Amino acid sequence: MPFSALPNHRGRAWTAVCLPGEKPMSILKENEHQPVGTQLPLAKVLDDLGWNADGLIPAIAQQFDSGEVLMMAWMNREALEETLRTGRVCYYSRSRGRLWRKGESSGQVQRLESLRIDCDGDTLLLRVDQTGPACHTGRRNCFFYRVDDDRAIIDSEPLIDPETLYGK
Amino acid sequence: MPFSALPNHRGRAWTAVCLPGEKPMSILKENEHQPVGTQLPLAKVLDDLGWNADGLIPAIAQQFDSGEVLMMAWMNREALEETLRTGRVCYYSRSRGRLWRKGESSGQVQRLESLRIDCDGDTLLLRVDQTGPACHTGRRNCFFYRVDDDRAIIDSEPLIDPETLYGK
Repeated sequence: MPFSALPNHRGRAWTAVCLPGEKPMSILKENEHQPVGTQLPLAKVLDDLGWNADGLIPAIAQQFDSGEVLMMAWMNREALEETLRTGRVCYYSRSRGRLWRKGESSGQVQRLESLRIDCDGDTLLLRVDQTGPACHTGRRNCFFYRVDDDRAIIDSEPLIDPETLYGK
Repeated sequence: MPFSALPNHRGRAWTAVCLPGEKPMSILKENEHQPVGTQLPLAKVLDDLGWNADGLIPAIAQQFDSGEVLMMAWMNREALEETLRTGRVCYYSRSRGRLWRKGESSGQVQRLESLRIDCDGDTLLLRVDQTGPACHTGRRNCFFYRVDDDRAIIDSEPLIDPETLYGK
């Protein structure tokens, strides 16, 4: 069955009808009430993602087996496509203005287990297998500042000294 | 000990010295190599968060006991302060341009268990107890589009019909 003929539960095809000048509804939004097993063509899904003005989308990295949220970073389309193609996670570094193959300096790579997109198409969830620390401070994850009353408290230690990781 | 006197492991105080015209280093960045137990004043931490041009910061919501990543949304400072004050999660809705007390229409609220900030101060991680579905489609979480080869596939069902949730 061609994708354009897929009905949703309200009887509309996924190709949304819209008024002149109106932004067309994304393929994800149009299909959000479809049943389990509904398949959408990835190229069209990527076209319709909620890329921001800089062409980026936030990507959450979660350790696949423990469920630990490791970090959040950004991807452009090239980074996302490379990640899907190679199975090694590649972000876009906003500070460096270029692709950032996670672990390229530190060796602490992320292998992709699965990649998910949210209902609005504006956030990615990557389940990964993280080698060593995800954080540049040498900690396993980046969320080591815990808010407690009127303070933020550091509550985890580095696995590895960052000076070892980055050879400084 | 006053906060300004806290040394980090390289012997600098957290109040960074910077050149004229240079953006001062955030209190989080300045203290990222401090040991477990280091405490920073929350008001200064909030001042230094990586609010974007719209005054927003991304907030990841994770079910506190299962580790399931439920959704990602945005907070402005008012939403964040209200969340910390009340223990009920409040976001900022970009589409509605106002505070969004999660569950205000659906009753599917999020109770805050803990709130964490990442090393760069530009992402929040909220561990929450989610009542029912987090997703407006009635699904438990928003990440129900799984990428598989050249397709995105819906792989979870609603817990509750969204027409029941929103009374449509």
